[in-house]
Amino acid sequence: MDVTGSGRLFGDTLPFMARRSWWGWGNEGVGPDERQMQSMAAGFRARFPGRDFDVARPARLEDLDLPRPRVQPPAALAAAFSDAVYDRAGHTYGKSYRDVVRGFRGQLDHPPDLVAFPPDESTVSALLDWATSADVLVVPYGGGSSVVGGVECPDQGHAGVVSMDLGRLDQVLEVDRTSRAARIQAGILGPALEDVLRPQGLTLRHFPQSFEFSSLGGWLATRSGGHYATARTHIDDFTESIRAVTPAGVYESRRLPGSGAGPSPDRLLLGSEGILGVITEAWMRLQDRPQWRASAAVHFARYADAVVATRAVVQAGLDPTNCRLLDETEAAMSAGTGGGVNLLVLGFESADHPVEWPMARAIELCADHGGACPDGPRSSGPAADTPPAAGDAVGAWRNAFIRAPYGRDALVAMSTIVETFETACTWDRFDALHAGVTEAVTKALGEVCGDGWITCRFTHVYPDGPAPYFSVLGPGRPGSEISQWDEIKAAASEAILANGGTITHHHAVGRDHRPWYDRQRPELFARTLRAAKATLDPAGIINPGVLIDP
Amino acid sequence: MDVTGSGRLFGDTLPFMARRSWWGWGNEGVGPDERQMQSMAAGFRARFPGRDFDVARPARLEDLDLPRPRVQPPAALAAAFSDAVYDRAGHTYGKSYRDVVRGFRGQLDHPPDLVAFPPDESTVSALLDWATSADVLVVPYGGGSSVVGGVECPDQGHAGVVSMDLGRLDQVLEVDRTSRAARIQAGILGPALEDVLRPQGLTLRHFPQSFEFSSLGGWLATRSGGHYATARTHIDDFTESIRAVTPAGVYESRRLPGSGAGPSPDRLLLGSEGILGVITEAWMRLQDRPQWRASAAVHFARYADAVVATRAVVQAGLDPTNCRLLDETEAAMSAGTGGGVNLLVLGFESADHPVEWPMARAIELCADHGGACPDGPRSSGPAADTPPAAGDAVGAWRNAFIRAPYGRDALVAMSTIVETFETACTWDRFDALHAGVTEAVTKALGEVCGDGWITCRFTHVYPDGPAPYFSVLGPGRPGSEISQWDEIKAAASEAILANGGTITHHHAVGRDHRPWYDRQRPELFARTLRAAKATLDPAGIINPGVLIDP
Repeated sequence: MDVTGSGRLFGDTLPFMARRSWWGWGNEGVGPDERQMQSMAAGFRARFPGRDFDVARPARLEDLDLPRPRVQPPAALAAAFSDAVYDRAGHTYGKSYRDVVRGFRGQLDHPPDLVAFPPDESTVSALLDWATSADVLVVPYGGGSSVVGGVECPDQGHAGVVSMDLGRLDQVLEVDRTSRAARIQAGILGPALEDVLRPQGLTLRHFPQSFEFSSLGGWLATRSGGHYATARTHIDDFTESIRAVTPAGVYESRRLPGSGAGPSPDRLLLGSEGILGVITEAWMRLQDRPQWRASAAVHFARYADAVVATRAVVQAGLDPTNCRLLDETEAAMSAGTGGGVNLLVLGFESADHPVEWPMARAIELCADHGGACPDGPRSSGPAADTPPAAGDAVGAWRNAFIRAPYGRDALVAMSTIVETFETACTWDRFDALHAGVTEAVTKALGEVCGDGWITCRFTHVYPDGPAPYFSVLGPGRPGSEISQWDEIKAAASEAILANGGTITHHHAVGRDHRPWYDRQRPELFARTLRAAKATLDPAGIINPGVLIDP
Repeated sequence: MDVTGSGRLFGDTLPFMARRSWWGWGNEGVGPDERQMQSMAAGFRARFPGRDFDVARPARLEDLDLPRPRVQPPAALAAAFSDAVYDRAGHTYGKSYRDVVRGFRGQLDHPPDLVAFPPDESTVSALLDWATSADVLVVPYGGGSSVVGGVECPDQGHAGVVSMDLGRLDQVLEVDRTSRAARIQAGILGPALEDVLRPQGLTLRHFPQSFEFSSLGGWLATRSGGHYATARTHIDDFTESIRAVTPAGVYESRRLPGSGAGPSPDRLLLGSEGILGVITEAWMRLQDRPQWRASAAVHFARYADAVVATRAVVQAGLDPTNCRLLDETEAAMSAGTGGGVNLLVLGFESADHPVEWPMARAIELCADHGGACPDGPRSSGPAADTPPAAGDAVGAWRNAFIRAPYGRDALVAMSTIVETFETACTWDRFDALHAGVTEAVTKALGEVCGDGWITCRFTHVYPDGPAPYFSVLGPGRPGSEISQWDEIKAAASEAILANGGTITHHHAVGRDHRPWYDRQRPELFARTLRAAKATLDPAGIINPGVLIDP
């Protein structure tokens, strides 16, 4: 399956009108079935002898006993609100490991009192006005895929908390074919957006792992990292202008391809994680849909060589679309390479011209550092838009990438501790960061789980440094998974900060990364951010606790 | 001469230890000589019959009668200050047309009381502390090449005004070869920076037209547009981290190749034009020095075709290093193409691989829209780093580009009105913007000068729009040039705003662009910027009047 070819992920398995799981990653009924879960558990028992891996059952919606809503919606806006248990439960958390575990166990201590689904921007304004006057907190909610506590409802002692789901603002309002840009409402999810653009031969080509369940507004608010592994990696670079509703009024920048008129007004909203206003729409830069592709899987016996080769490729200015370096374990698990192979997954694509040439040069640079490409590069043109052949390492890896979050729900059911974290650092710091993080997490895993593993891949690479993405798995103790994970995560975060990394390259800060973000961020920038918050949200009602203190 | 090859612009003519002109563009003794000026005047008399074009003499430094400094430097910092007439006169203005005219005529109504040349960052801090306590305004001054009133000393009724010249902070402090980055002090000018990097095979490759007389700190504070015509155009994209001294303390971001941890702390300083703090150093991303180059001059009979072809090239994702579309007049004047030719100057370069292929594809795309390349593309590799042959259109254009500001001083001497302005807009708006600006300026030229011309080139192009750069020339009335120009500029600026452009793509806002910037900028962003200013500079002493009101 090509992630981008059909535009419908899991088109073969997704039930029509599927309903989102209120506690787990995706749609209900998708993911491993009972037989597959038992098979996974058996595999874990073999790998971690003496552990149970019993498959538990998630809490049932009908058994939840949520506290009664503390506030009532204003009469004029009542139609936009829901107090249904399904809605409140589903909007209590995002989709981090901590969130899924709590949801799975039915631990919903602070659900939103109400969930609002504003049908238009004026309702967003009216909701903020009401919330300001009624001392009600508002948590903007896009696709709900935050893995950092970004949409978790705070318990702040205010009159109440409303989760504001932007899902009804899901239209593409205008397409400017000449400039290749579109005005898009913030609540649209990835697949729906691509469905609208495809008939025009256009694409945003922003494919985070959460693509299926994340929204344009969420991508903008969290500086999402997408499809492009090099050069223009974050959603930031595809943003022409943004429109947001703040408690102080509407904030809208001018559509421009580039500008040097003062600090960028867009860059203040990009990464603002809902604390300054609710993004309602944006003009986004689009691409023509790629026609030519080339991909290759380059094998390295030594990880250090693979790292240097990856750096050589990106410093050569080749700008591959895909440039993911999987370490030995990760390659074996997700691309089936067997042991002893570090795998660099390379891809180039273009809507205009064949891309064999940059691929050949990239492979040449890899060869300079001991990289081999046993299956050769694969390329295709406009007439050859076929799915990858069975056994293809690149295709196998891509499928695993997109399906991974579904698998995690099953792992939670068997009390496995399974989570990812990511960072970025300059190349001169990478070896020490990689060693430091691996050592710290391995030690923490030993202490809290008795066993487990950590793997690393690069999701994005820059001329001045990589963005390493770590995956952790260990056997957990039923009922203690969250505190176990918190300990591992703290060890990882300390190692990242000590070795010059960022606490997040593209997962955002949310509430979970605050302790380390507070240390990484210039204190004077924190003060200006608080001043901006006081200006745009004087009552402090939107998403308090994210990025800065209320 | 290759702009980047020798690293020393005008290396053949620049007097050793040359002194900056206190009123004009560059170094004293460079630019047209008496004979050349008379020849220029004769040419203008032929083009504009009935006008004088008498060549006047600039005011003499020794004849200036500057007001006495109103403040004395604090004893502990006295060594960092100068009250010399040369320094005060030379720091009164930037280098816009308005500035050069006023300097030429000796109209220095508000010179700085003192000029400070801090030798280190701690002196910058001490100076800001003193200025805060003494109610003295501070205008940060890098290379002094602002063309928007960005370094002009305000007359604000405070105790005094100090121009803070960062020129002594001119060192490259660290080079990280692995990550290709360097820690560089803000006061270093372009040529000196490249001199340090060249022996290591590195370059920042940031070559604004002001390269010879602009500083790293100035580039960062104004979001300078540099060498790259596509993709990574502004200095923003080459910034790894920034360090600035504010009245509230030191603001320093973490070195990172990419990050999604909240809104970018760097992007608040990029474009802040000195109102939030004094940038003292930055880690900048470097490049390997290019070894392969290709260039071509593509001729179009029709301007509209050339515009569409340029859009096709940039939307194809070819990312040429140079992609400058000169209209018919501009091509004739600066590249000697004769009449009837719209010229697209294309360039590709790489440190890693030959670039004939993207050039061939770009020429093919141009041919689809009627573009011809009569001299064919030229390319060179590592062994062929020779100057362009005589008569080469690309080389001729580049020389004219860099020398232009010197010529302007001579034009001022003969009361010619000569200035440039620039913008950016999305492609769908360009035809109307081009027509609107051309019509408005032509009308204004007719009204205030009786004659004159306006030409257009693209300095940068993006997939979603171009950055058009307009040049204006008309015969002025001695003594009235500034009011004449102000009228033309206002007409141009109104037309830009009405047609969806930005008041500046890379010249910055300064004081001169304020009326239009204030209308373009989201009002809520202005309020957050004022809040940031109040946080970082509570006494409001640094560069008041730029970007926002004091």
